[in-house]
Amino acid sequence: MSDPVFAHPFLGPLLSDAEAEALLSAGSDLTHILEFEAALAEAEGQHGVIPAPSAITIAATARGLRLDPETLALATVRDGVVVPELLRQLRAALPAEEVVHVHFGATSQDAIDTSLVLRLHKLLPLFEQRLSGIDETLLSLADQFGGEPLMAQTRMQDAMPVSIGHRLAAWRAGIATIGPDLEYFRTTRLCLQLGGPVGLLDALGHKAIPVRKTLATLLKVPDGGQWQNNRQVLAELAGLLVRLTGALGKLGQDAALMAQNARQGIRLSGGGTSSAMAHKSNPVRAEILVALARYNATLLSAIHQALIHEQERSGAAWTLEWLALPQILITTGASLNNAAALLAQIDSLGEFL
Amino acid sequence: MSDPVFAHPFLGPLLSDAEAEALLSAGSDLTHILEFEAALAEAEGQHGVIPAPSAITIAATARGLRLDPETLALATVRDGVVVPELLRQLRAALPAEEVVHVHFGATSQDAIDTSLVLRLHKLLPLFEQRLSGIDETLLSLADQFGGEPLMAQTRMQDAMPVSIGHRLAAWRAGIATIGPDLEYFRTTRLCLQLGGPVGLLDALGHKAIPVRKTLATLLKVPDGGQWQNNRQVLAELAGLLVRLTGALGKLGQDAALMAQNARQGIRLSGGGTSSAMAHKSNPVRAEILVALARYNATLLSAIHQALIHEQERSGAAWTLEWLALPQILITTGASLNNAAALLAQIDSLGEFL
Amino acid sequence: MSDPVFAHPFLGPLLSDAEAEALLSAGSDLTHILEFEAALAEAEGQHGVIPAPSAITIAATARGLRLDPETLALATVRDGVVVPELLRQLRAALPAEEVVHVHFGATSQDAIDTSLVLRLHKLLPLFEQRLSGIDETLLSLADQFGGEPLMAQTRMQDAMPVSIGHRLAAWRAGIATIGPDLEYFRTTRLCLQLGGPVGLLDALGHKAIPVRKTLATLLKVPDGGQWQNNRQVLAELAGLLVRLTGALGKLGQDAALMAQNARQGIRLSGGGTSSAMAHKSNPVRAEILVALARYNATLLSAIHQALIHEQERSGAAWTLEWLALPQILITTGASLNNAAALLAQIDSLGEFL
Amino acid sequence: MSDPVFAHPFLGPLLSDAEAEALLSAGSDLTHILEFEAALAEAEGQHGVIPAPSAITIAATARGLRLDPETLALATVRDGVVVPELLRQLRAALPAEEVVHVHFGATSQDAIDTSLVLRLHKLLPLFEQRLSGIDETLLSLADQFGGEPLMAQTRMQDAMPVSIGHRLAAWRAGIATIGPDLEYFRTTRLCLQLGGPVGLLDALGHKAIPVRKTLATLLKVPDGGQWQNNRQVLAELAGLLVRLTGALGKLGQDAALMAQNARQGIRLSGGGTSSAMAHKSNPVRAEILVALARYNATLLSAIHQALIHEQERSGAAWTLEWLALPQILITTGASLNNAAALLAQIDSLGEFL
Repeated sequence: MSDPVFAHPFLGPLLSDAEAEALLSAGSDLTHILEFEAALAEAEGQHGVIPAPSAITIAATARGLRLDPETLALATVRDGVVVPELLRQLRAALPAEEVVHVHFGATSQDAIDTSLVLRLHKLLPLFEQRLSGIDETLLSLADQFGGEPLMAQTRMQDAMPVSIGHRLAAWRAGIATIGPDLEYFRTTRLCLQLGGPVGLLDALGHKAIPVRKTLATLLKVPDGGQWQNNRQVLAELAGLLVRLTGALGKLGQDAALMAQNARQGIRLSGGGTSSAMAHKSNPVRAEILVALARYNATLLSAIHQALIHEQERSGAAWTLEWLALPQILITTGASLNNAAALLAQIDSLGEFL
Repeated sequence: MSDPVFAHPFLGPLLSDAEAEALLSAGSDLTHILEFEAALAEAEGQHGVIPAPSAITIAATARGLRLDPETLALATVRDGVVVPELLRQLRAALPAEEVVHVHFGATSQDAIDTSLVLRLHKLLPLFEQRLSGIDETLLSLADQFGGEPLMAQTRMQDAMPVSIGHRLAAWRAGIATIGPDLEYFRTTRLCLQLGGPVGLLDALGHKAIPVRKTLATLLKVPDGGQWQNNRQVLAELAGLLVRLTGALGKLGQDAALMAQNARQGIRLSGGGTSSAMAHKSNPVRAEILVALARYNATLLSAIHQALIHEQERSGAAWTLEWLALPQILITTGASLNNAAALLAQIDSLGEFL
Repeated sequence: MSDPVFAHPFLGPLLSDAEAEALLSAGSDLTHILEFEAALAEAEGQHGVIPAPSAITIAATARGLRLDPETLALATVRDGVVVPELLRQLRAALPAEEVVHVHFGATSQDAIDTSLVLRLHKLLPLFEQRLSGIDETLLSLADQFGGEPLMAQTRMQDAMPVSIGHRLAAWRAGIATIGPDLEYFRTTRLCLQLGGPVGLLDALGHKAIPVRKTLATLLKVPDGGQWQNNRQVLAELAGLLVRLTGALGKLGQDAALMAQNARQGIRLSGGGTSSAMAHKSNPVRAEILVALARYNATLLSAIHQALIHEQERSGAAWTLEWLALPQILITTGASLNNAAALLAQIDSLGEFL
Repeated sequence: MSDPVFAHPFLGPLLSDAEAEALLSAGSDLTHILEFEAALAEAEGQHGVIPAPSAITIAATARGLRLDPETLALATVRDGVVVPELLRQLRAALPAEEVVHVHFGATSQDAIDTSLVLRLHKLLPLFEQRLSGIDETLLSLADQFGGEPLMAQTRMQDAMPVSIGHRLAAWRAGIATIGPDLEYFRTTRLCLQLGGPVGLLDALGHKAIPVRKTLATLLKVPDGGQWQNNRQVLAELAGLLVRLTGALGKLGQDAALMAQNARQGIRLSGGGTSSAMAHKSNPVRAEILVALARYNATLLSAIHQALIHEQERSGAAWTLEWLALPQILITTGASLNNAAALLAQIDSLGEFL
């Protein structure tokens, strides 16, 4: 199957983000689920919950396992989650005596949520880097054009003369807290999920917390307790990302208004061609930033609907996260890419009338 | 690129819809854009706007054209739309003297919006058929189990005894108007888009309206005047589809509540397996219906934000449609599929306590 | 208590609608609930479900009843709905022997939903009238300025010269179907609600349907069967209204862009004063149209979340309607008012550069 | 005018919050705008921007001013903001020579945004206190009932036996970070707005920053630079509040499911009466928590749409904030109230089958 938007062969490069997609792909998900199972065995081996040799065997087998995608797909249709069949394939690849030690004390949600966490720990630093790059470009544009004149616009009316530097400073202010906020979030809140069937990790007895801490260390993610039915962490993440695309949407909206017939402050190279009007140069990247910001602002609502995660595990709320969060992540990546591309198109800034 | 949700190898079969995806794919889009260009030439040939032999040549070439996807992708990154480069490739495949007759009087948006319309005229009847199938299944369940007892629940409390037939009738009522509404919409409102660069079709002079009517006839879609910056038709469509997924979401929520430990009214076969609890049979399809309904209710907002389509053509609002509408269509298709699958899993209905 | 927005003493006149508010007020709600109880008694009296003299007494008492608001408020905190206490007060005003005939076979939701329906049957024609007025003003502006030049703008760039009439025609096209759609909706779909505790009207036996039909006739609203847990009618209404505010939001966005320093096509009288810049004339009404459209597009999502109305009656989904639907109605009324005010401010239209 | 929901005489006590409403009322807004003007004069007096005696006169007059509400309302219809007319009335109450020193260097937005900030600095601590109270009640319920049995529910199916304490711990976890996050937000990010017409505070020359810092000190709010077109602070606040109502919505949904016919874990006193079924006790507060959470999750989208705040000041985006943020604040207050009320209704917790 191909995708109507994000994996689209010609819209994808504009509206999607290859790095985000790679990490959010099914293949990457499976790799990280297997890594969770491997590291879980290792952590349980270290604490004597399962025999140390079993841990070694399971970890090696999980990390080297070649999964059968068709059977995974068929079983997921039945189970709603991929993990039971993945574990069946993992167990089938192990000596019979190791089977009971696989996935010990854990549940599907532990594997799936932690796989997401591991991939977010790879993706968010990429976003932070891109954001830094955008900020540096804005600084450099300020060096180059900051002193040029601009007629400030309030309520879409001429207000009073300012400099281009003032507009650029506003764009920088919009993203200033988001980088540090993302880093704080990632290093303190984006934790391992390990709770077992109902969140008690009861099969591990008094070793539950030590195993969880060791697993977090092995996977290089923070440990903050299980969160299987407390989805605040995803709402907080989504909020940060939608604030980011909102800031870039403001930049895009400003640029599109500045680009109106080159009357007001921006000249772009390589703008969009029209099929009917040869003289046009459409501010495509700027428009896309606005569209992505409005789309993400909409999706944010879905993630907050999913906070109503009933009882110990909600299939409906969890599925709603699966539908909305990847879109938010890819939209954010696409927004960062489009902002960088737009800034790279700037030939000059300043009042041209 | 692969997709995180809809084209997902193992979640896709649950959360997506292969038929909707096929029609919304880039390949299908290009085929229908070329069909628009072919039929436009034919219509213009019939009315003497372009020479009749040119029309024949252009139509045949467009319908047989093999596009170069890589060049299309690169140019779309520049132009924001695929049509200018598609036309370049079409013109390159034609004798030099025909080049001026291609796409005469039209603009990119005409081709892109009409391609969408053509594909919706194929997709909506599929949805209507699936909806009829669901209604028939509900009727047949009523025949089989309608007389069984059910304790009606109001505000999540026992109200008074009713029959299963009463619950099934409510499910049928939720979808009763949607089939006819979709058919009315499709046959009267889902019109050809042809307006030229700014909506006036001025290059066609007094033949503008005759050409548009002929084109509509050739493409077998209604003609209701151009709508390039009046996007009510898409909002109306999205509303209908989200009302449909809402009705099926109510059905799913009811089924999930009835399935609570088989206490209250439904027994399902083939429910989801748990990786940790062998006794469980999760009502996966019911939960998915709820998630899809909530997701679609969220996306509906984006389509209505896109009604603020400024001036003669808004790049930002149009892009927002491209982001949201395919998701709504696929979600709707997936919801119909899941509803059919859920109903097929019903072993029995009635009070079991 | 006073309100932060809609009943706000100085923002209200801009952002609210006095006629919508009056009909949506608690006082109007109570009056219409009592009218429902009165007409229900009359309908039941006509069909011999209750004695005819009882019907006369109950109807007269209900229509003349002075309710005690404080007791209503206290009881609503306990019950979540106002009807049980309202009925207690109604029964207390009646001879003891009539008490059993009050509200016979009905439930709170019947009274509350029908009260809403009765008020919508008063409010929607007002909206339709205002919409006609706006269309007439647009026509008259076209008569006056339609031939003036305008540089069409596509993707926020100069496209080609058109006339003001072309822009005005687009504004009219956006609202063209909504008046007829609202009238069709109102006269065919906006039906009486009467279902009794669980939707079966079982206490009325074989007289259930005749009583419902008579009640509909007495209340001058259509009868289409009970809809207590099938909320499609409210989603359809909300969709129509949000499409309307979206069309007016497009008009407002266009006007705000045209008003940019009077460079591009519109001159407004009586624009907003600035506290700091004496030369400014802010296009306040145009901006408000955009804000109301975006707000309503957001709220639409909530009404569609409420389609997931579980089982025979959902307290949560019903409450969600109460939160969102009045806001949508008032926002729509405010949008119509602002559009009329904006058009009345137009001094001239045309290209001024 | 009265309000359809939040100032509703009988729904208001359930769905609104009197303390939030009081702070968000027009009267409180005007008081805080006048306090801003008074403190601004004092700060400018301290730094010699205006004469010290003028500062004393202006501050005293502003704090004691009786405004004429009708004229304010009429002028706001014209200006879109209340400040120009408020300043006219303030100036009319001053000696002629002081008129030029009023509001010196500031703009309407400074007064309006700072008035909001001042009131949020009063409201958020109230929310934090209520949240602490809820957490204490949960702790005390855990003391009383924590050891009682509960059948954990995953995907709406019996999973395995746990204790009531486990469910209560999940409810506490949902709100655990929100109190500290609100406090951090309030003390570090919820800053004074002072930027003048276009954000440069240029009329104050080199005294701009010192005056702003002094003003922040006088008003007891942080200073972090002007944010007139960088609305991240409001999106961050809205996100925190919607995460809070989401956590309480999860609690409400759980309670409603537990209350199903007292089968599963909760017994409530004082539940809602039915007008038709005497045996019922509806979990009204629990349902309301779900409705408020879903409503707020919807509104969150609007605040993030308003991040696209074009140029130096956007009338449309600012108005959108005015529409959405008060609703989010009141909904949050109502949610806290309903959660406290629900917990107070708990008679017992535990498995009753």
